[in-house]
Amino acid sequence: MYFDHLTFSAMEKRQKARFINSLAGFKSANLIGTRDAKGQENVAVVSSLIHLGSNPALLGFISRPHSVERHSLENIVTSGFFTANAVTEQLYRAAHQTSARYQKHESEFEQTGLTPVYSDLINAPYVKESPLKIGLKLVETLPIAANDTVMIIGEVQEVWVDSEAVMKDGYIDLEKLSISTISGLDSYHRTERLDRLSYAKPNQPLTRIDVNGEPLE
Amino acid sequence: MYFDHLTFSAMEKRQKARFINSLAGFKSANLIGTRDAKGQENVAVVSSLIHLGSNPALLGFISRPHSVERHSLENIVTSGFFTANAVTEQLYRAAHQTSARYQKHESEFEQTGLTPVYSDLINAPYVKESPLKIGLKLVETLPIAANDTVMIIGEVQEVWVDSEAVMKDGYIDLEKLSISTISGLDSYHRTERLDRLSYAKPNQPLTRIDVNGEPLE
Repeated sequence: MYFDHLTFSAMEKRQKARFINSLAGFKSANLIGTRDAKGQENVAVVSSLIHLGSNPALLGFISRPHSVERHSLENIVTSGFFTANAVTEQLYRAAHQTSARYQKHESEFEQTGLTPVYSDLINAPYVKESPLKIGLKLVETLPIAANDTVMIIGEVQEVWVDSEAVMKDGYIDLEKLSISTISGLDSYHRTERLDRLSYAKPNQPLTRIDVNGEPLE
Repeated sequence: MYFDHLTFSAMEKRQKARFINSLAGFKSANLIGTRDAKGQENVAVVSSLIHLGSNPALLGFISRPHSVERHSLENIVTSGFFTANAVTEQLYRAAHQTSARYQKHESEFEQTGLTPVYSDLINAPYVKESPLKIGLKLVETLPIAANDTVMIIGEVQEVWVDSEAVMKDGYIDLEKLSISTISGLDSYHRTERLDRLSYAKPNQPLTRIDVNGEPLE
Protein backbone atom coordinates (compact mmCIF):
# COMPACT_ATOMS: atom_id res chain seq x y z
CA MET A 1 0.00 0.00 0.00
CA TYR A 2 1.52 3.30 -1.08
CA PHE A 3 0.91 6.73 0.39
CA ASP A 4 2.37 9.94 -0.96
CA HIS A 5 1.85 13.65 -0.37
CA LEU A 6 -1.42 13.61 -2.29
CA THR A 7 -2.85 10.73 -0.24
CA PHE A 8 -1.93 12.50 3.03
CA SER A 9 -3.59 15.72 1.91
CA ALA A 10 -6.77 13.86 1.09
CA MET A 11 -6.97 12.27 4.55
CA GLU A 12 -9.40 13.62 7.12
CA LYS A 13 -7.51 15.61 9.79
CA ARG A 14 -7.73 13.16 12.72
CA GLN A 15 -7.25 10.15 10.44
CA LYS A 16 -4.03 11.73 9.18
CA ALA A 17 -2.92 12.48 12.75
CA ARG A 18 -3.45 8.82 13.73
CA PHE A 19 -1.56 7.61 10.64
CA ILE A 20 1.43 9.96 11.00
CA ASN A 21 1.61 9.38 14.78
CA SER A 22 1.90 5.63 14.10
CA LEU A 23 4.83 5.89 11.69
CA ALA A 24 7.88 6.19 13.95
CA GLY A 25 7.06 2.99 15.88
CA PHE A 26 6.65 2.26 19.58
CA LYS A 27 7.06 5.19 21.93
CA SER A 28 7.91 5.64 25.59
CA ALA A 29 5.08 6.42 28.02
CA ASN A 30 5.86 8.98 30.71
CA LEU A 31 4.00 11.35 33.00
CA ILE A 32 5.64 14.78 33.18
CA GLY A 33 5.13 16.43 36.59
CA THR A 34 5.47 20.20 37.08
CA ARG A 35 4.19 23.05 39.25
CA ASP A 36 3.86 26.79 38.84
CA ALA A 37 5.12 29.59 41.09
CA LYS A 38 1.95 29.38 43.21
CA GLY A 39 2.37 25.64 43.75
CA GLN A 40 -0.42 24.63 41.33
CA GLU A 41 0.49 21.12 40.14
CA ASN A 42 0.28 19.69 36.64
CA VAL A 43 0.84 16.22 35.24
CA ALA A 44 0.65 15.26 31.54
CA VAL A 45 1.29 12.08 29.59
CA VAL A 46 3.95 12.38 26.85
CA SER A 47 5.09 9.84 24.29
CA SER A 48 8.07 11.79 22.97
CA LEU A 49 10.57 11.49 25.83
CA ILE A 50 13.93 10.39 24.40
CA HIS A 51 17.48 9.76 25.52
CA LEU A 52 19.83 12.49 24.26
CA GLY A 53 23.07 11.44 25.91
CA SER A 54 24.60 9.77 28.96
CA ASN A 55 27.41 12.17 29.81
CA PRO A 56 25.88 14.53 30.83
CA ALA A 57 22.69 12.50 31.36
CA LEU A 58 20.13 14.29 29.20
CA LEU A 59 16.52 13.54 28.26
CA GLY A 60 14.28 15.60 26.01
CA PHE A 61 10.63 15.76 24.97
CA ILE A 62 8.52 17.72 22.51
CA SER A 63 5.98 20.30 23.65
CA ARG A 64 3.33 21.65 21.34
CA PRO A 65 2.80 25.25 22.60
CA HIS A 66 -0.87 25.28 21.61
CA SER A 67 -1.78 21.89 23.09
CA VAL A 68 -2.52 20.68 26.61
CA GLU A 69 1.22 20.39 27.20
CA ARG A 70 1.53 24.19 27.21
CA HIS A 71 0.90 24.29 30.98
CA SER A 72 3.82 21.91 31.49
CA LEU A 73 6.06 24.09 29.32
CA GLU A 74 5.11 27.29 31.17
CA ASN A 75 5.75 25.64 34.53
CA ILE A 76 9.11 24.19 33.50
CA VAL A 77 10.35 27.54 32.23
CA THR A 78 9.21 29.21 35.48
CA SER A 79 10.42 26.60 37.98
CA GLY A 80 13.44 25.23 36.11
CA PHE A 81 12.46 21.63 36.96
CA PHE A 82 10.30 18.70 35.86
CA THR A 83 9.89 15.02 36.65
CA ALA A 84 9.39 12.05 34.30
CA ASN A 85 7.50 9.07 35.72
CA ALA A 86 7.20 5.81 33.79
CA VAL A 87 3.65 4.69 32.91
CA THR A 88 2.88 1.08 33.83
CA GLU A 89 0.11 -1.44 33.10
CA GLN A 90 -1.55 -0.22 36.30
CA LEU A 91 -1.31 3.47 35.33
CA TYR A 92 -2.02 3.78 31.61
CA ARG A 93 -5.72 4.65 31.94
CA ALA A 94 -5.04 7.45 34.44
CA ALA A 95 -2.12 8.56 32.29
CA HIS A 96 -4.28 8.76 29.15
CA GLN A 97 -6.92 10.75 31.06
CA THR A 98 -4.32 13.47 31.84
CA SER A 99 -4.42 14.37 28.13
CA ALA A 100 -7.92 15.86 28.53
CA ARG A 101 -8.07 19.65 28.20
CA TYR A 102 -8.41 20.59 31.86
CA GLN A 103 -8.40 24.23 32.92
CA LYS A 104 -5.17 25.62 34.33
CA HIS A 105 -6.57 25.76 37.89
CA GLU A 106 -7.56 22.08 37.75
CA SER A 107 -4.88 19.62 38.86
CA GLU A 108 -4.70 16.48 36.73
CA PHE A 109 -3.49 14.72 39.88
CA GLU A 110 -6.85 15.31 41.56
CA GLN A 111 -8.82 14.64 38.39
CA THR A 112 -7.18 11.29 37.66
CA GLY A 113 -6.43 9.93 41.14
CA LEU A 114 -2.64 10.09 40.83
CA THR A 115 -0.65 11.12 43.93
CA PRO A 116 1.98 13.90 43.93
CA VAL A 117 5.11 13.39 46.07
CA TYR A 118 8.22 15.55 46.43
CA SER A 119 11.93 15.17 47.02
CA ASP A 120 14.22 17.83 48.53
CA LEU A 121 16.07 18.39 45.26
CA ILE A 122 13.40 18.94 42.60
CA ASN A 123 10.80 21.72 42.47
CA ALA A 124 8.21 19.53 40.73
CA PRO A 125 5.91 16.70 41.81
CA TYR A 126 6.67 13.03 41.19
CA VAL A 127 3.89 10.51 40.57
CA LYS A 128 3.94 8.31 43.66
CA GLU A 129 2.45 5.29 41.86
CA SER A 130 5.25 5.07 39.26
CA PRO A 131 8.10 2.58 39.94
CA LEU A 132 10.62 4.63 37.91
CA LYS A 133 10.81 8.34 38.76
CA ILE A 134 13.32 10.75 37.24
CA GLY A 135 14.02 14.27 38.51
CA LEU A 136 15.33 16.71 35.91
CA LYS A 137 16.69 20.24 35.83
CA LEU A 138 15.89 22.32 32.75
CA VAL A 139 18.97 22.80 30.55
CA GLU A 140 17.59 24.18 27.29
CA THR A 141 14.33 24.86 25.44
CA LEU A 142 15.04 24.36 21.76
CA PRO A 143 12.55 25.89 19.30
CA ILE A 144 11.85 23.72 16.24
CA ALA A 145 11.13 26.21 13.48
CA ALA A 146 9.69 23.64 11.07
CA ASN A 147 6.45 23.29 13.03
CA ASP A 148 6.55 25.76 15.92
CA THR A 149 7.14 23.15 18.63
CA VAL A 150 9.75 23.16 21.38
CA MET A 151 12.15 20.46 22.56
CA ILE A 152 12.54 20.64 26.32
CA ILE A 153 15.90 19.28 27.46
CA GLY A 154 16.59 18.32 31.06
CA GLU A 155 19.59 16.93 32.93
CA VAL A 156 18.90 13.95 35.19
CA GLN A 157 19.44 14.95 38.84
CA GLU A 158 18.11 11.89 40.62
CA VAL A 159 16.36 8.58 39.92
CA TRP A 160 14.06 6.51 42.12
CA VAL A 161 13.64 2.94 40.91
CA ASP A 162 12.76 -0.43 42.45
CA SER A 163 16.15 -2.02 43.09
CA GLU A 164 15.07 -5.45 41.80
CA ALA A 165 14.92 -3.97 38.28
CA VAL A 166 18.47 -2.60 38.16
CA MET A 167 20.86 -5.18 36.72
CA LYS A 168 24.53 -5.40 37.72
CA ASP A 169 25.68 -4.07 34.33
CA GLY A 170 23.49 -0.94 34.65
CA TYR A 171 20.59 -2.06 32.40
CA ILE A 172 17.12 -1.45 33.87
CA ASP A 173 14.67 -4.31 33.28
CA LEU A 174 11.58 -2.26 32.35
CA GLU A 175 9.50 -5.45 32.02
CA LYS A 176 10.03 -6.27 35.68
CA LEU A 177 8.39 -2.89 36.40
CA SER A 178 5.46 -3.54 33.97
CA ILE A 179 6.29 -0.40 32.03
CA SER A 180 4.07 0.27 29.00
CA THR A 181 4.77 1.49 25.49
CA ILE A 182 2.50 3.57 23.22
CA SER A 183 1.74 3.34 19.51
CA GLY A 184 -0.16 5.98 17.60
CA LEU A 185 -2.20 8.40 19.71
CA ASP A 186 -4.07 6.02 21.97
CA SER A 187 -2.77 2.44 21.96
CA TYR A 188 -0.99 1.03 25.03
CA HIS A 189 1.08 -2.17 24.99
CA ARG A 190 2.98 -4.51 27.30
CA THR A 191 6.23 -6.04 26.08
CA GLU A 192 7.99 -9.38 26.01
CA ARG A 193 11.79 -9.54 25.62
CA LEU A 194 13.10 -11.18 22.45
CA ASP A 195 16.79 -10.86 23.33
CA ARG A 196 19.53 -8.75 24.71
CA LEU A 197 22.39 -8.77 22.20
CA SER A 198 26.14 -8.33 22.62
CA TYR A 199 27.95 -5.15 21.58
CA ALA A 200 28.21 -5.28 17.78
CA LYS A 201 31.65 -5.45 16.13
CA PRO A 202 32.54 -5.74 12.43
CA ASN A 203 32.93 -9.31 11.17
CA GLN A 204 32.07 -10.87 14.50
CA PRO A 205 28.79 -12.72 15.12
CA LEU A 206 26.40 -11.29 17.72
CA THR A 207 25.73 -13.36 20.80
CA ARG A 208 22.65 -13.39 22.99
CA ILE A 209 23.08 -12.13 26.54
CA ASP A 210 20.69 -12.66 29.43
CA VAL A 211 18.88 -9.87 31.27
CA ASN A 212 21.89 -9.49 33.59
CA GLY A 213 24.26 -8.98 30.68
CA GLU A 214 25.86 -12.46 30.95
CA PRO A 215 26.57 -14.46 27.74
CA LEU A 216 23.95 -17.09 26.87
CA GLU A 217 25.82 -18.78 24.05
CA MET B 1 16.72 2.44 45.34
CA TYR B 2 17.97 5.99 44.98
CA PHE B 3 20.51 7.36 42.53
CA ASP B 4 21.79 10.90 42.52
CA HIS B 5 24.58 12.80 40.79
CA LEU B 6 27.19 11.24 43.05
CA THR B 7 26.03 7.69 42.29
CA PHE B 8 26.11 8.38 38.53
CA SER B 9 29.64 9.76 38.71
CA ALA B 10 30.82 6.65 40.54
CA MET B 11 29.42 4.32 37.86
CA GLU B 12 31.74 2.71 35.34
CA LYS B 13 31.33 4.40 31.93
CA ARG B 14 29.43 1.63 30.06
CA GLN B 15 27.39 0.76 33.14
CA LYS B 16 26.28 4.38 33.33
CA ALA B 17 25.48 4.42 29.60
CA ARG B 18 23.27 1.31 30.01
CA PHE B 19 21.51 2.82 33.03
CA ILE B 20 20.86 6.26 31.49
CA ASN B 21 19.83 4.71 28.16
CA SER B 22 17.19 2.68 30.02
CA LEU B 23 15.56 5.62 31.77
CA ALA B 24 13.24 7.11 29.15
CA GLY B 25 11.41 3.81 28.55
CA PHE B 26 10.72 1.79 25.41
CA LYS B 27 12.07 3.21 22.15
CA SER B 28 11.26 2.83 18.49
CA ALA B 29 13.50 0.63 16.34
CA ASN B 30 14.29 1.93 12.87
CA LEU B 31 16.91 1.48 10.19
CA ILE B 32 18.00 4.79 8.64
CA GLY B 33 19.01 4.40 4.98
CA THR B 34 21.24 6.95 3.22
CA ARG B 35 23.78 7.21 0.40
CA ASP B 36 26.58 9.61 -0.44
CA ALA B 37 27.24 11.54 -3.67
CA LYS B 38 29.11 8.55 -5.15
CA GLY B 39 26.24 6.18 -4.43
CA GLN B 40 27.91 4.46 -1.44
CA GLU B 41 25.07 3.15 0.71
CA ASN B 42 24.74 3.26 4.48
CA VAL B 43 22.18 1.83 6.89
CA ALA B 44 22.18 2.32 10.68
CA VAL B 45 19.83 1.30 13.48
CA VAL B 46 18.49 4.21 15.56
CA SER B 47 16.31 4.15 18.67
CA SER B 48 15.63 7.89 18.84
CA LEU B 49 13.21 8.40 15.92
CA ILE B 50 10.22 10.42 17.17
CA HIS B 51 7.07 12.02 15.85
CA LEU B 52 7.36 15.82 15.77
CA GLY B 53 4.06 16.76 14.16
CA SER B 54 1.42 15.64 11.68
CA ASN B 55 0.87 18.80 9.69
CA PRO B 56 3.41 19.00 8.15
CA ALA B 57 4.30 15.36 8.77
CA LEU B 58 7.66 15.54 10.53
CA LEU B 59 9.91 12.94 12.15
CA GLY B 60 13.24 13.55 13.87
CA PHE B 61 16.14 11.56 15.29
CA ILE B 62 19.33 12.27 17.19
CA SER B 63 22.76 11.89 15.61
CA ARG B 64 25.94 11.77 17.67
CA PRO B 65 28.53 13.37 15.35
CA HIS B 66 31.37 11.25 16.76
CA SER B 67 29.55 7.91 16.65
CA VAL B 68 28.79 5.43 13.89
CA GLU B 69 25.80 7.56 12.92
CA ARG B 70 28.12 10.27 11.61
CA HIS B 71 28.14 8.63 8.15
CA SER B 72 24.35 8.86 8.07
CA LEU B 73 24.47 12.54 9.04
CA GLU B 74 27.06 13.38 6.37
CA ASN B 75 25.04 11.56 3.71
CA ILE B 76 21.76 13.22 4.69
CA VAL B 77 23.27 16.70 4.58
CA THR B 78 24.77 15.94 1.14
CA SER B 79 21.82 14.18 -0.47
CA GLY B 80 18.94 15.92 1.33
CA PHE B 81 17.12 12.60 1.88
CA PHE B 82 16.87 9.60 4.18
CA THR B 83 14.61 6.62 4.75
CA ALA B 84 13.29 5.13 8.00
CA ASN B 85 12.47 1.42 7.94
CA ALA B 86 10.76 -0.29 10.88
CA VAL B 87 12.71 -3.11 12.56
CA THR B 88 10.74 -6.33 13.03
CA GLU B 89 11.17 -9.59 14.93
CA GLN B 90 12.75 -10.99 11.76
CA LEU B 91 15.18 -8.06 11.40
CA TYR B 92 16.42 -7.07 14.85
CA ARG B 93 19.65 -9.10 14.77
CA ALA B 94 20.71 -7.65 11.40
CA ALA B 95 19.60 -4.21 12.64
CA HIS B 96 21.75 -4.48 15.78
CA GLN B 97 24.74 -5.58 13.70
CA THR B 98 24.57 -2.31 11.70
CA SER B 99 25.74 -0.52 14.88
CA ALA B 100 29.24 -2.03 14.48
CA ARG B 101 31.93 0.48 13.51
CA TYR B 102 32.29 -0.36 9.84
CA GLN B 103 34.56 1.70 7.62
CA LYS B 104 32.94 4.31 5.40
CA HIS B 105 33.59 2.28 2.22
CA GLU B 106 31.89 -0.81 3.73
CA SER B 107 28.14 -1.00 3.16
CA GLU B 108 26.18 -2.23 6.18
CA PHE B 109 23.70 -3.65 3.66
CA GLU B 110 26.31 -6.07 2.36
CA GLN B 111 27.74 -6.76 5.81
CA THR B 112 24.38 -7.62 7.40
CA GLY B 113 22.45 -9.17 4.51
CA LEU B 114 19.83 -6.43 4.22
CA THR B 115 18.67 -5.47 0.73
CA PRO B 116 18.61 -1.87 -0.58
CA VAL B 117 15.69 -0.82 -2.80
CA TYR B 118 14.83 2.56 -4.31
CA SER B 119 11.79 4.61 -5.25
CA ASP B 120 11.69 7.38 -7.86
CA LEU B 121 11.18 10.10 -5.26
CA ILE B 122 13.85 9.56 -2.60
CA ASN B 123 17.64 9.68 -3.08
CA ALA B 124 18.29 7.10 -0.35
CA PRO B 125 17.93 3.31 -0.08
CA TYR B 126 14.99 1.62 1.63
CA VAL B 127 15.40 -1.69 3.44
CA LYS B 128 13.48 -4.16 1.30
CA GLU B 129 12.78 -6.54 4.19
CA SER B 130 10.95 -3.92 6.30
CA PRO B 131 7.11 -3.88 6.11
CA LEU B 132 6.93 -0.14 6.97
CA LYS B 133 9.16 2.12 4.90
CA ILE B 134 9.15 5.91 5.17
CA GLY B 135 10.81 8.27 2.69
CA LEU B 136 11.87 11.65 4.12
CA LYS B 137 13.26 14.92 2.83
CA LEU B 138 15.67 16.78 5.11
CA VAL B 139 14.05 19.91 6.57
CA GLU B 140 16.41 21.00 9.32
CA THR B 141 19.49 19.90 11.26
CA LEU B 142 19.14 21.28 14.76
CA PRO B 143 22.32 21.45 16.88
CA ILE B 144 21.79 20.57 20.56
CA ALA B 145 24.35 22.67 22.39
CA ALA B 146 24.00 20.80 25.69
CA ASN B 147 25.89 17.73 24.42
CA ASP B 148 27.06 18.47 20.89
CA THR B 149 24.51 16.22 19.16
CA VAL B 150 22.24 17.05 16.23
CA MET B 151 18.53 16.50 15.73
CA ILE B 152 17.84 15.60 12.10
CA ILE B 153 14.33 16.58 11.03
CA GLY B 154 12.68 15.20 7.92
CA GLU B 155 9.32 15.65 6.24
CA VAL B 156 7.52 12.47 5.23
CA GLN B 157 7.30 12.25 1.42
CA GLU B 158 5.97 8.74 0.98
CA VAL B 159 5.11 5.63 2.97
CA TRP B 160 5.11 1.96 1.95
CA VAL B 161 3.18 -0.24 4.33
CA ASP B 162 1.36 -3.60 4.15
CA SER B 163 -2.25 -2.58 3.64
CA GLU B 164 -3.61 -5.12 6.13
CA ALA B 165 -2.03 -3.07 8.95
CA VAL B 166 -3.69 0.28 8.11
CA MET B 167 -6.97 0.65 10.00
CA LYS B 168 -9.91 2.64 8.63
CA ASP B 169 -9.40 5.43 11.18
CA GLY B 170 -5.75 5.90 10.12
CA TYR B 171 -4.09 3.98 13.00
CA ILE B 172 -1.35 1.56 11.90
CA ASP B 173 -1.39 -1.77 13.74
CA LEU B 174 2.35 -2.19 14.36
CA GLU B 175 1.78 -5.57 16.01
CA LYS B 176 0.34 -6.99 12.80
CA LEU B 177 3.70 -6.10 11.22
CA SER B 178 5.73 -7.70 14.10
CA ILE B 179 7.50 -4.41 14.75
CA SER B 180 9.99 -4.43 17.65
CA THR B 181 10.78 -1.96 20.39
CA ILE B 182 14.12 -1.35 22.13
CA SER B 183 15.04 -0.75 25.76
CA GLY B 184 18.46 0.35 26.91
CA LEU B 185 21.25 -0.14 24.40
CA ASP B 186 20.74 -3.73 23.36
CA SER B 187 17.37 -5.22 24.40
CA TYR B 188 14.72 -5.99 21.77
CA HIS B 189 11.07 -6.69 22.59
CA ARG B 190 7.81 -7.74 20.97
CA THR B 191 4.57 -6.17 22.19
CA GLU B 192 1.05 -7.17 23.14
CA ARG B 193 -1.76 -4.58 23.05
CA LEU B 194 -3.39 -3.72 26.37
CA ASP B 195 -5.98 -1.33 24.92
CA ARG B 196 -6.74 1.44 22.56
CA LEU B 197 -8.50 4.20 24.52
CA SER B 198 -11.00 6.86 23.46
CA TYR B 199 -10.05 10.54 23.13
CA ALA B 200 -9.81 11.91 26.69
CA LYS B 201 -12.21 14.66 27.80
CA PRO B 202 -12.53 16.32 31.22
CA ASN B 203 -15.05 14.65 33.55
CA GLN B 204 -15.92 11.91 31.08
CA PRO B 205 -14.85 8.28 31.57
CA LEU B 206 -12.51 6.76 28.99
CA THR B 207 -13.83 3.89 26.92
CA ARG B 208 -11.89 1.06 25.31
CA ILE B 209 -11.85 0.98 21.52
CA ASP B 210 -10.86 -1.95 19.32
CA VAL B 211 -7.92 -1.92 16.94
CA ASN B 212 -10.19 -0.45 14.22
CA GLY B 213 -11.18 2.48 16.45
CA GLU B 214 -14.70 1.14 17.15
CA PRO B 215 -16.13 1.38 20.72
CA LEU B 216 -15.85 -1.84 22.76
CA GLU B 217 -17.99 -0.73 25.70
